[in-house]
Amino acid sequence: MTPLNETHDPNLKSWVDSAQDSEFPVQNLPFGVFSPSSAEPRIGVAIGDRILDAREWAKNADLSETIKAALSRPTLNGFMSLGQESWSMVRLAISRALRQDGDRSAPLYKASDCTMHLPADIGDYTDFYASIYHATNVGALFRPDNPLLPNYKHIPIAYHGRASSVVPSGTPIKRPKGQTKADDAESPTYGPSRVLDYELEIGVFIGPGNQLGEPIDASQAEQQLFGLCLLNDWSARDLQKWEYQPLGPFLAKNFASTISPWIVTTEALAPFRCDPFQRPEGDPQPLSYLLPAGSGFDIHLEAQIAQADTEPMTLCRSNSKWLYWTIAQMIAHHTSNGCNLKPGDLIGTGTISGPDIESLGSLLELTRGGKQPFQLPNGESRRFLEDGDRIVLRARCERQGFASIGFGECSGEIVGA
Amino acid sequence: MTPLNETHDPNLKSWVDSAQDSEFPVQNLPFGVFSPSSAEPRIGVAIGDRILDAREWAKNADLSETIKAALSRPTLNGFMSLGQESWSMVRLAISRALRQDGDRSAPLYKASDCTMHLPADIGDYTDFYASIYHATNVGALFRPDNPLLPNYKHIPIAYHGRASSVVPSGTPIKRPKGQTKADDAESPTYGPSRVLDYELEIGVFIGPGNQLGEPIDASQAEQQLFGLCLLNDWSARDLQKWEYQPLGPFLAKNFASTISPWIVTTEALAPFRCDPFQRPEGDPQPLSYLLPAGSGFDIHLEAQIAQADTEPMTLCRSNSKWLYWTIAQMIAHHTSNGCNLKPGDLIGTGTISGPDIESLGSLLELTRGGKQPFQLPNGESRRFLEDGDRIVLRARCERQGFASIGFGECSGEIVGA
Repeated sequence: MTPLNETHDPNLKSWVDSAQDSEFPVQNLPFGVFSPSSAEPRIGVAIGDRILDAREWAKNADLSETIKAALSRPTLNGFMSLGQESWSMVRLAISRALRQDGDRSAPLYKASDCTMHLPADIGDYTDFYASIYHATNVGALFRPDNPLLPNYKHIPIAYHGRASSVVPSGTPIKRPKGQTKADDAESPTYGPSRVLDYELEIGVFIGPGNQLGEPIDASQAEQQLFGLCLLNDWSARDLQKWEYQPLGPFLAKNFASTISPWIVTTEALAPFRCDPFQRPEGDPQPLSYLLPAGSGFDIHLEAQIAQADTEPMTLCRSNSKWLYWTIAQMIAHHTSNGCNLKPGDLIGTGTISGPDIESLGSLLELTRGGKQPFQLPNGESRRFLEDGDRIVLRARCERQGFASIGFGECSGEIVGA
Repeated sequence: MTPLNETHDPNLKSWVDSAQDSEFPVQNLPFGVFSPSSAEPRIGVAIGDRILDAREWAKNADLSETIKAALSRPTLNGFMSLGQESWSMVRLAISRALRQDGDRSAPLYKASDCTMHLPADIGDYTDFYASIYHATNVGALFRPDNPLLPNYKHIPIAYHGRASSVVPSGTPIKRPKGQTKADDAESPTYGPSRVLDYELEIGVFIGPGNQLGEPIDASQAEQQLFGLCLLNDWSARDLQKWEYQPLGPFLAKNFASTISPWIVTTEALAPFRCDPFQRPEGDPQPLSYLLPAGSGFDIHLEAQIAQADTEPMTLCRSNSKWLYWTIAQMIAHHTSNGCNLKPGDLIGTGTISGPDIESLGSLLELTRGGKQPFQLPNGESRRFLEDGDRIVLRARCERQGFASIGFGECSGEIVGA
């Protein structure tokens, strides 16, 4: 776990004025890949409403040739592979360059003039199911008599998602078509999904990874965390219901998954670590390969819905501290059979719901499977997503004595099939 | 569908003597990626016991710069992206260069001096479940009352596998550890899998692919088929049983999947196409987005088991014509929701079992879940795989009036955890 250091000092201010009180103050410094106007993609760091061109900046920075080469590539995979020591070194140097007493020579672009891309070439994408509140809520809808399966409290349940259809925030989401079967129908039909949902998740970008056949010990798992982003695992519930037995969700999920383009590094998140989820009395202790659990993260999450003519409306406020399994446990479990993780692999936490009605991270839960519609500011009613609906995920970390940091926006609008 | 042409002429012979009557006659010409001794990986074509260095050969061939550039890369992804016309053009040129009347200048290496690599950088790996015999046999073990679920005859069921752990033939397979729970145990334990199995499958390498949001029509799906290989989807049945609900297999499968290194092109397979599986009377017709079904493939498959001190013993003889869904239907279904396929993506058919006791493509089926052990030539008994067991998959196409072609070997030996 990265210790607190000078980059976390709450008194630091940047010579980029917009940084102060923004989601991206000098204490944050998230990494991403951007294009200034129509130029080629390159690695950048967000500061206020600007983006530091990390490739250009690195040319004159006091860094090793290995680091400079990694920062000159069009994706973050190479930099992710270098590990915590290199990440820290670069963060410190960028922090110093952007502080009020920095030499103000860092090459910046206005973020609003830039296009954001996927931060990495995602080799594999795995999605967990780590919120026990979500698992219980969803389980109750699909299997009323048996909401939480017997393995849930022993195994960090997960499945493989689709890497090719992970898209950056802002990409329109075409309503998927697929096979569905009404309970009272004799046969299925093929057509646009009518039960389209979002899922509020956090995405984890993996650092150095491991060799095939060499599990990562739980005590070493946190060293694999390059950083976190927001993830919307769009879900077609009607497709899911008909297809998911016996091998799990497939077309219900793989038409698109949206991520926020800025990766907030684990080091930036150091002040916002918290104890892992407190298991209720009577719950089994994790098997030893899942210990130590590592820390949780206290990240405030919010999902909003908006249409062209309406103000955004909050659907849910949740927090990653509600996850039953820590990210370190997910990594230890994922590799416990020898499965190899690679730099730039993406892991989703699964929908993060909390214990309250206000903290339900999907419409499936909020509307009780569509039985309890809610009203939008424009008077329309919603059970699931309609064309023109835009879902915006946001995240923010706050702690007394530290600068607040945000994740930026993870947004996508549904367009007709 | 590629028509028959001069490259399929059974009377063609190669000036490479070993080609005649081998798995790789001049009518086959499968593509792969190899290294001569310790040189860097490059694209090659198998001919008898030799490998044509396609990169070197292309330099002097009458081909476009685009094709030459694709053949000069260390993976087949670029060549796969070019499509059927380019694939055919290269096949024809290589066929002419290797025929008896060719100029014998093609740069060849002895295959036994070379190392084979993965043929492509596999972006995503999807595994289907397309043999109704396998699905019924396995379903009966996991769900005796309900072997074939109601969706099976309507949906080509599939799930996402792990791309990072796909390995080429010959890679040792480390016995995975994982969580298992005996039926009569109170709690799970973590340790080496005791119920390790193989699965006999065919792998499909995708060509040009599609844009996100743009389904591939069933009538166009065959144009996506670059070629086929053998695939062993190693499975830890004890892990699978405990983890697979509700999101499907995960650690039970993702510790390794072995493929044969030579991709037999769809064009080489043209003489061995056959009618799609004849649905029994009373089975539902596929929905229209899954039609036309395209063709099946008549490929004889065999799985063998061997130990250091024993002759290989045949476990199973099957045939890809037993698949309930065609490969074209798998592709049409996979993209029917807009999911994008990319060049070099790998699709598995799922275990290919046939209707007979001799055609069961996994030990789970052969030993009825371990209840009926079988005997090896050395007198040992087996329910599932022991350390030191080697599984070899083979495939061969035969048809009157055509040269027989083979797939080479897909092999892996189990080593201790």
